[in-house]
Amino acid sequence: MEELNENIQFQISDELIKKVEHLIDSREDKTTLEFLNEFHYADIAEILDELSFNHAIYVIKLLDSETTSDILTELDEDLREKILKNLSDKEIAEEIEELDTDDAADIIAELPEERQEEIIELIEDEEHKAEITELLAYDNNTAGSLMAKELVKVNENWTVTQCVREMRAQAENVTRVHSIYVIDAAGKLIGRLSLKDLLMASPKAHISTVYIPKVDYVDVNEGVEDVAKVMQKYDLEAIPVVDKNQTLLGRITIDDIVDVIKEEAEKDYQLAAGITQDVEADDSIIELTRARLPWLFLGLIGGVGAALIMGDFEHMLKDHAVLFFFTPLIAAMAGNVGVQSSAIIVQGLANDDVKGSINNRLIKEMFLAALNGVILAAFLFLFVWIYKNDVYTALAISISLVVVIIVAGLIGTFVPLFLDKRGIDPAIATGPFITTSNDIFGILIYFWIAKMILGI
Amino acid sequence: MEELNENIQFQISDELIKKVEHLIDSREDKTTLEFLNEFHYADIAEILDELSFNHAIYVIKLLDSETTSDILTELDEDLREKILKNLSDKEIAEEIEELDTDDAADIIAELPEERQEEIIELIEDEEHKAEITELLAYDNNTAGSLMAKELVKVNENWTVTQCVREMRAQAENVTRVHSIYVIDAAGKLIGRLSLKDLLMASPKAHISTVYIPKVDYVDVNEGVEDVAKVMQKYDLEAIPVVDKNQTLLGRITIDDIVDVIKEEAEKDYQLAAGITQDVEADDSIIELTRARLPWLFLGLIGGVGAALIMGDFEHMLKDHAVLFFFTPLIAAMAGNVGVQSSAIIVQGLANDDVKGSINNRLIKEMFLAALNGVILAAFLFLFVWIYKNDVYTALAISISLVVVIIVAGLIGTFVPLFLDKRGIDPAIATGPFITTSNDIFGILIYFWIAKMILGI
Repeated sequence: MEELNENIQFQISDELIKKVEHLIDSREDKTTLEFLNEFHYADIAEILDELSFNHAIYVIKLLDSETTSDILTELDEDLREKILKNLSDKEIAEEIEELDTDDAADIIAELPEERQEEIIELIEDEEHKAEITELLAYDNNTAGSLMAKELVKVNENWTVTQCVREMRAQAENVTRVHSIYVIDAAGKLIGRLSLKDLLMASPKAHISTVYIPKVDYVDVNEGVEDVAKVMQKYDLEAIPVVDKNQTLLGRITIDDIVDVIKEEAEKDYQLAAGITQDVEADDSIIELTRARLPWLFLGLIGGVGAALIMGDFEHMLKDHAVLFFFTPLIAAMAGNVGVQSSAIIVQGLANDDVKGSINNRLIKEMFLAALNGVILAAFLFLFVWIYKNDVYTALAISISLVVVIIVAGLIGTFVPLFLDKRGIDPAIATGPFITTSNDIFGILIYFWIAKMILGI
Repeated sequence: MEELNENIQFQISDELIKKVEHLIDSREDKTTLEFLNEFHYADIAEILDELSFNHAIYVIKLLDSETTSDILTELDEDLREKILKNLSDKEIAEEIEELDTDDAADIIAELPEERQEEIIELIEDEEHKAEITELLAYDNNTAGSLMAKELVKVNENWTVTQCVREMRAQAENVTRVHSIYVIDAAGKLIGRLSLKDLLMASPKAHISTVYIPKVDYVDVNEGVEDVAKVMQKYDLEAIPVVDKNQTLLGRITIDDIVDVIKEEAEKDYQLAAGITQDVEADDSIIELTRARLPWLFLGLIGGVGAALIMGDFEHMLKDHAVLFFFTPLIAAMAGNVGVQSSAIIVQGLANDDVKGSINNRLIKEMFLAALNGVILAAFLFLFVWIYKNDVYTALAISISLVVVIIVAGLIGTFVPLFLDKRGIDPAIATGPFITTSNDIFGILIYFWIAKMILGI
């Protein structure tokens, strides 16, 4: 059992980092190499993320380019940028030679434009160079930007034996064979074949007699989120990418889709929490401020708006000061209800399960908000009545609360649906945006209704 | 090109639903069958979700059990429950026979306990029965609950030819072959072999000479989130599951992990938005109320708390009414900052990239919040100064704002870290929970500092 590599038990620790630092500092390159080569490249990337920059670059220069190219793809973006800055064009080109086309294109795309061309020129493998250049031309967030050129394709006219021979050559360049794509003489995708089918077919059979003509595929200009949905729905591990003439261009694998799903979820989560830009806990204070301050500023403006509204109702202070004590409650409830309803809509839109018209949604939310509002208002009524012994004030505050909750629910439902119809990401409607507008509307409605009921 | 099945273009439409309803109502079973069999089972599931219950159950009884068993796994949970209620034990057992062990166990686990045993008894394939029974015994959210028993395993002592022969038999039961697991005579996992390796090896070679002894695996009791992390980190499409003696028990495939990642993200998102339980936009008003009301109630209590605090400072109303106008602003800022900082920590914890001590985190957040707070307070100072022409009030409100923001940031950072250390899901610390406590603390601190500065 000793040889078995238990990756799941890899746990980064201070001792491990110290040991690596010590090995580097002692310049015992051979021991360092032997030690590091025991780890998976994803684990080495994790170690480098924790080392000082000088130590990290030392390791990168020490390891062979087959390993370092894989490590580069796994590194934290900031560290990768710094390391690439410290590598020569020639060194980067060598790393690129080792990578699959999709990873290669991703790394080149991160470089400053002036370096991109120079590095591409230095790639020796002409086919690799042409494929990377092709991939770089696709728009961000399209299937083309996510696909790799590496795949195994066979001609429908081959026999199984011929096919296995050809595949041996092709498979050298393909890390994992998912499906074998079957093309016609013109290069058009016409079906697929699994390795399992090939393994079980008679060696003399023609591919045209054994392939499966049913194959899912995506257009090269399809959006990545739609590709993710298709792959999830049909439980696919890879999907071929074609152009408008059905010519097979590349394939997308599920591991890239997993990253898309995670990033999408994290982005929505951060938007809901009032954080623009993709930041991590370990980013600098300046980066974090840049991501957080704009939303807080929005909140500040909302708060100032609320203050101005309250200033307008200042004459009510004398006899109904208690109304002012409940403004944070009103604002909080308006904000919470708005976020709840918008979050459900945003999530439903992402999963394609918001059906029916906007009107039906709004009617449903109205009933829902009214039900919640009445239950909450009943408790608030009892509290204010007992607390202030003033049934009219208690009634005014409670009735206002119900109306505020209904309006907040409607805004929370309407805004994301409206944005989505306009082709704008509805996720921006959650979080501080909805909270702030609901705060202002809420307080305005509250004083307005209270004024009517109390007849001031 | 006609034969090519373009699944990505499947788009559910009212016309399609009407057509299916019409076909069912006309009792033209043969035409209905032909029409539906053109679709992927995941698409048929989508269609059934839109049909009336009677139509849906008609389709289920019409299609063969090979198709319906797959459809069942893709249906909306509520509809599946209703359909299973309308199928006899015998009929369900027939569906179960068709399914892979993991899907079979998932469906049985959803049934009422009294039916579970009866249905398992009716499964004719003894091996399938035993395997499903084994899977049902594993705890929820462990690797065991997610794995399937279907896999391809070969003995290290076989030759490649023997191996291919054995595999042909095994592969009949396995939808997709990811890796071939290599075991020793005792059934212990000792390595793996890819189909590609097998395809490229000499037929006479012994497996022991060609297999790769490096293999990632997980323990059957490992948590599903950790399994997801490992599979993502190492870009795995399948991972073998072993018991504490290293005996190979099953395997987990990436499509199940994609579901885990999505569910986890949706749960965190809903918690941040103040929604308990897993609800969807199309759930009933009662279900949605049950998910939303508890958090709103928490907000109500927070608001009442804020009102009581303001009541305590009522004596300040006469000379400093303007202080009261800014309470919604203070509460909103405290809430927003708290949510921002807790969301970053929760996300960082989920991605394992929150390193270093809690103290360092708190110190960093203090500087960050202070920086944001001072910038925001400067604007607020100017506004209040111009609006009220009272420099002391402006100063009191602005200084309070800075302190409130710092405290809110610290609470937002500390609470999720604390919960995580205690083994509690830190995601519950985002959303209304943090907002409500920050509202109360914020308003208390605000009046307290204002009182000191204004010397009341």
